[in-house]
Amino acid sequence: MAMYTEMTKEQLQSEHDLLKREFDEICAKGKKLDMSRGKMDSVQLDLSSPMLWCLSEKDEWVSNGMDCRNYGGLDGIIEMKQIVADILGLEPPEVIVGGNSSLEMMFDNVGVNMSHGVRGGVPWQKQGEIKFICPVPGYDRHFRICEYFHIKMIPVEMLPTGPDMDVVEKLVKDDPMIKGIWCVPLFSNPSGCVYSDETVKRLANLTPAADDFRIYWDHAYCIHNFRGELPVIPNIIRECEKAGSPNMPLVFMSFSKISFCGAAVAGMASSKSNCEYVKERMFVQTVGPNKMNQLRHARFFEDLNGVLAHMKKMAEILRPKFEHVVGKLESNLGGKGIAEWNDPDGGYFISFNTLDNLAKRTVALCAEAGLTMTEAGATFPYGIDPRDRNIRIAPSYPSFDELKEAIEVFCVAVRLAAVEKLLGA
Amino acid sequence: MAMYTEMTKEQLQSEHDLLKREFDEICAKGKKLDMSRGKMDSVQLDLSSPMLWCLSEKDEWVSNGMDCRNYGGLDGIIEMKQIVADILGLEPPEVIVGGNSSLEMMFDNVGVNMSHGVRGGVPWQKQGEIKFICPVPGYDRHFRICEYFHIKMIPVEMLPTGPDMDVVEKLVKDDPMIKGIWCVPLFSNPSGCVYSDETVKRLANLTPAADDFRIYWDHAYCIHNFRGELPVIPNIIRECEKAGSPNMPLVFMSFSKISFCGAAVAGMASSKSNCEYVKERMFVQTVGPNKMNQLRHARFFEDLNGVLAHMKKMAEILRPKFEHVVGKLESNLGGKGIAEWNDPDGGYFISFNTLDNLAKRTVALCAEAGLTMTEAGATFPYGIDPRDRNIRIAPSYPSFDELKEAIEVFCVAVRLAAVEKLLGA
Repeated sequence: MAMYTEMTKEQLQSEHDLLKREFDEICAKGKKLDMSRGKMDSVQLDLSSPMLWCLSEKDEWVSNGMDCRNYGGLDGIIEMKQIVADILGLEPPEVIVGGNSSLEMMFDNVGVNMSHGVRGGVPWQKQGEIKFICPVPGYDRHFRICEYFHIKMIPVEMLPTGPDMDVVEKLVKDDPMIKGIWCVPLFSNPSGCVYSDETVKRLANLTPAADDFRIYWDHAYCIHNFRGELPVIPNIIRECEKAGSPNMPLVFMSFSKISFCGAAVAGMASSKSNCEYVKERMFVQTVGPNKMNQLRHARFFEDLNGVLAHMKKMAEILRPKFEHVVGKLESNLGGKGIAEWNDPDGGYFISFNTLDNLAKRTVALCAEAGLTMTEAGATFPYGIDPRDRNIRIAPSYPSFDELKEAIEVFCVAVRLAAVEKLLGA
Repeated sequence: MAMYTEMTKEQLQSEHDLLKREFDEICAKGKKLDMSRGKMDSVQLDLSSPMLWCLSEKDEWVSNGMDCRNYGGLDGIIEMKQIVADILGLEPPEVIVGGNSSLEMMFDNVGVNMSHGVRGGVPWQKQGEIKFICPVPGYDRHFRICEYFHIKMIPVEMLPTGPDMDVVEKLVKDDPMIKGIWCVPLFSNPSGCVYSDETVKRLANLTPAADDFRIYWDHAYCIHNFRGELPVIPNIIRECEKAGSPNMPLVFMSFSKISFCGAAVAGMASSKSNCEYVKERMFVQTVGPNKMNQLRHARFFEDLNGVLAHMKKMAEILRPKFEHVVGKLESNLGGKGIAEWNDPDGGYFISFNTLDNLAKRTVALCAEAGLTMTEAGATFPYGIDPRDRNIRIAPSYPSFDELKEAIEVFCVAVRLAAVEKLLGA
């Protein structure tokens, strides 16, 4: 494989003509492919389908003496609190099990801090321009919450060990307007990074200028390894306790990528005292979560072991897809000096970098060829990737046959965009 | 039956001794009865239980080509949008079908207006002290939302036709800080009142000083008649359109008292344009509602006729309970000059007035005798009933046998409190 960057103009031109022909042929086929969202495929969803008819007997509708078809209970049924606590290595009183969306729990939590302050302190919105640290590349839905509440986002680079802690430590120590940091500690979206022990401990030992600083710990992929053993990272809640900041972390998780996307159960965890504050608001806000859907999950999974066994089946479906994609990236793009990517052991994404200023062009070429990718820039605050190079690849949703086509289309687009640029330069 | 108010001191004393003995006997039995909340009893819940196993076939998981076990869709599946639209006499684009709690939709809606303003206008929280009109007696959860957001509540008397519109019209016309009114137009909580045509039309034709004034139309009991035909009141959305204020009303409804309390589906309706604003926020806030629970409802009820047939069965369960309670109130308390109550044709509550300053005492006596009632004062803003006389009776939850006992206990408590007062005076 020749490095594109070392090719002569003539070699590049002939490569361009070849690729352009290939690209036009793909376009002519009118494909409809999609690697844009971290959705499950139907084989994954089928694993949980028996959950849909597991509540057919009257005695299955009762939790702790409570008929779950009726009002009552605010923070989730005890069976699900236990399972979520076991997944997170916590105790049930540190857990709140809610509705179907952990994003909504994060949104609500930022919202209440804006309007009512952290633990009854001065509302953020009355303190001036609030700022959050956003490790990049990161998750666009986190960034959108910040944008919605007019929270200024400060990007900090993701290293292979997690966010660049030298920068994070200095920022939060110096600036009392920095009130939060978004973290996806295991199989980060999109970098696939697993935070190192040191990173977690340094986060827990932050000494923020703001006493109402919060770590938003989005544990979306906490048991979502598809290769090797589940990595064990230090428990952020226990580490913060040790560091004397027990109320600093807010942990979020969801069954959306365990059972059904968007029809599952979401949970949050924090100090018992923080949970009491959250429940005060929930009491005003809602009649309580859908307990029947929680029961459905509790009956189907039974306990932590049931969930982990289920995730092993999930891994068998996801691993070949990721390995196929990474293999094709290697064989089609390796050694050409035009791209880099990661090879994660879990999560739902591959983070892909083109040459500078080519992400938008590459995604546009994909679209022309019938392949939908996540919008270029989406992994950065305000949708602005300063080097316009990061693309998030989501291999889970297409069937295996579609995925094979999709990754070929993607590689042609990457190569064509690179050759165009090198020819133009 | 003798009027207590016309009894001699001796007659009152002998009545007191009689009642006190009866009361002590009840207390000694150590009953545990509850008429405090508008919950369903298990017979009502059983009507919907087949819904729990109606999604057992793969082709039942698809709505409009979308696998409802996966992400996608923000404002509800088309089948449920159609059913909710038909219930409300509207079109699907005027409807958003959400999660399990209409209270949460109301809370969110007030919250977004506080923080982001109505349709992008000046946020309420930046305008000074916001006020809402609260018809009284009313629903405590509405009042709690106001309290949470520091919205000043202005009580306005409920008449048999709905809120006193002479007062409402003048208030909203004069005061630009009045931004909302809470309405439960059909079978009001707790008065059971059905708004007259004139009231609805006068509400639609309000000329508020605030151009960001909103009518919060909590249609919680929109098809919940248990006696006679369903009353037809003018459609608030159409009336507001006619009056040139198409964006003024926000309508909320829920299946919590149709299928399962707290495990059902909630909806809201407004102008198409308002719905677009709501969806902008929802896109930031959530991955979308639990579509599987919406499907479950759509498959079970099929259409409006299915829902209405279901509500007829509900009525057969509720009517005897309400008729028993009202009958007992009449036979035990009628003609004594110590209480008044309504006799609703639908909804979940009976509104009961003691003599002035006796509601708290009566509820306390009930508690002593093992009967839980809604806290006295709960039907007024800030929990303060200025005449301390209103008690909300919820006959639905106890079994018929328990209900028979509960209403006897209640009547003894009312009589005892009244005699105590008259003796003391």
